[in-house]
Amino acid sequence: MHVGIIGAGQLGRMLALAGIPLGIRFSFLDPSDQPCAADLGRVVCAAFDDSDAIRQFAKDCDVLTFEFENIPAKLLSEDNAIDIQPCAKALFAAQDRAREKTLFEHCAIPVGPWRPADNQQEVEKAIDEIGLPVIVKLRSLGYDGKGQTRIIHKEDAANLYEKMGGVGLLVERLIDFDQELSVIGTRDHSGNIAIYPLTKNEHRNGILHRSETTAFNSALTQQAVKHFKALAEKLDYVGTLAIEFFVKDQVLLGNEFAPRVHNSGHWTIDGAPSSQFNNHIRAICGLPLGATTLCRPSGMLNLIGKMPNVSEVTAAHCYFHDYAKSPRAGRKLGHLNIIAETQRQVSETLDEICAQLDL
Amino acid sequence: MHVGIIGAGQLGRMLALAGIPLGIRFSFLDPSDQPCAADLGRVVCAAFDDSDAIRQFAKDCDVLTFEFENIPAKLLSEDNAIDIQPCAKALFAAQDRAREKTLFEHCAIPVGPWRPADNQQEVEKAIDEIGLPVIVKLRSLGYDGKGQTRIIHKEDAANLYEKMGGVGLLVERLIDFDQELSVIGTRDHSGNIAIYPLTKNEHRNGILHRSETTAFNSALTQQAVKHFKALAEKLDYVGTLAIEFFVKDQVLLGNEFAPRVHNSGHWTIDGAPSSQFNNHIRAICGLPLGATTLCRPSGMLNLIGKMPNVSEVTAAHCYFHDYAKSPRAGRKLGHLNIIAETQRQVSETLDEICAQLDL
Repeated sequence: MHVGIIGAGQLGRMLALAGIPLGIRFSFLDPSDQPCAADLGRVVCAAFDDSDAIRQFAKDCDVLTFEFENIPAKLLSEDNAIDIQPCAKALFAAQDRAREKTLFEHCAIPVGPWRPADNQQEVEKAIDEIGLPVIVKLRSLGYDGKGQTRIIHKEDAANLYEKMGGVGLLVERLIDFDQELSVIGTRDHSGNIAIYPLTKNEHRNGILHRSETTAFNSALTQQAVKHFKALAEKLDYVGTLAIEFFVKDQVLLGNEFAPRVHNSGHWTIDGAPSSQFNNHIRAICGLPLGATTLCRPSGMLNLIGKMPNVSEVTAAHCYFHDYAKSPRAGRKLGHLNIIAETQRQVSETLDEICAQLDL
Repeated sequence: MHVGIIGAGQLGRMLALAGIPLGIRFSFLDPSDQPCAADLGRVVCAAFDDSDAIRQFAKDCDVLTFEFENIPAKLLSEDNAIDIQPCAKALFAAQDRAREKTLFEHCAIPVGPWRPADNQQEVEKAIDEIGLPVIVKLRSLGYDGKGQTRIIHKEDAANLYEKMGGVGLLVERLIDFDQELSVIGTRDHSGNIAIYPLTKNEHRNGILHRSETTAFNSALTQQAVKHFKALAEKLDYVGTLAIEFFVKDQVLLGNEFAPRVHNSGHWTIDGAPSSQFNNHIRAICGLPLGATTLCRPSGMLNLIGKMPNVSEVTAAHCYFHDYAKSPRAGRKLGHLNIIAETQRQVSETLDEICAQLDL
């Protein structure tokens, strides 16, 4: 079996590392000539919107998938020769925050108040209707907190549409959430679903800083499983899918979803029998899904901008994942996973490591 | 960091798969031009006794190790430019069954009666001294049961020295053992040791058929840990080391050791926080050792000669490892790992899979 991945960054790298033990070969399509997955397969160097290259790449592979959402979903959905998993419909929905929110609503996933805004007048009208504070986001192409502006006072919204580039925006009520959780799971071709325990996430400047598995909370887990199933079934989804939620008064509010393996699921490499990467590959290749139970309470810390010296970290049960990328401010270079006997120990160990590494 | 591995078979492949997440690059030296580790790094195509090629290969790498014992230990020990881990001393001892047994004795590891034999007269004298039945083995280059003859009746030993190729032999009392166990662990540069739970092994025709982790047995574990430490310290060993024992009346008798990752430790990929491969790489690269505790009771089944269709196996918690080798009778093509809540469930699942796949 030969899997083609659009994108050859760390997610592609970890997908290949999880798939090679299954006897699967990998190729990647990426505009970079030295992407970090290059050690694990052939790289076709092409832009993500090079439709001819993607078409040819698809022909050469048995199964096509992606690690990166900003590829032309239209191309993928219109060309019958391209069979991509997860399907182009999921990609298309995830590429626009208004479509994403509408889809959540169709799936009976609660969301906070939101409005699309295509000009300055609509921005101001949305703010009046929703009430301050709000967060204004690019409808497309934003990630890791980029393309987002918080508006606390009405006057800060002056000329905002212009300032944000004159493109489609989404105005959302800024949720004063109790915590951020994500649910990650995998659905196969037959509709079987395997879901990992809920993950609690902490962002810094819009970028995921750390994740921890949560002690079993049946009310939230029930909601998450229901929402996951509704969305995955609605999209006839095959592969690993992540939904990020805000928790407010014990209710999950859908924030966004990623039609791919997700940073908040990196702990599954060391903390679950089958990782999110392994299960994604199993699903798209038609293999039975692996188990998603928690081996031990787990946590993950992103390593951004600079890789620490591994020997500095003396914590037991610390598992480094180095993406072999050259350092650059704000760049995700790796992560470390922690497992421990209790969730409290995981938290304390992450605290210690943050202190030790000045993170 | 750039690790060079002499040998690019499945052990090299699994070493690289465990090391790449640590940000380490791999190269391999192997006589085959299509070895199964080739997807994971550069391959230098050279014979295992090509001293010039090995010397050059060593120069190009930060750390040198091996997945295969039958390389000229003398070359490695005499050339100061070649820094190999584990050290050439361990390799040298493992390459000759008489040296191996002597080393066991020096380490106070009990062994069954044995004699070296360098001609037919010595074979017969050894049999007289030890008493039948015996097993006669090539002192060097035998593996997976090759180069071994069982002698039940004295007359079967006629001309045996000649029949076995006229090279150095070892005559051993055939042990009517209760079970076969192996201990696998890793020692780092500072002398820290991390040891996995004992593994119970079942061979067929001299080839490992299946392994299972064992319920905690404190008496045997104490012996195994003592023997492991004695041998690893004696050899000033760095890396993963395996010792195979016979158990007779609750005493461990040393059978042989492997100065490398070992087939009976393949369950550690899915059953332990850090696998034997991961810890080998950590040790030789000077990184702190990972945990070797049991996540869950585990088992392993070798897939030999023919890979089954993965979808045939419906058992939950079944993890396939396909070495991407072309099928050939008697060839190790992959293995599958099983994890379960109890050791009994592991055994039953392995039985079921054997029945299902006709193994």
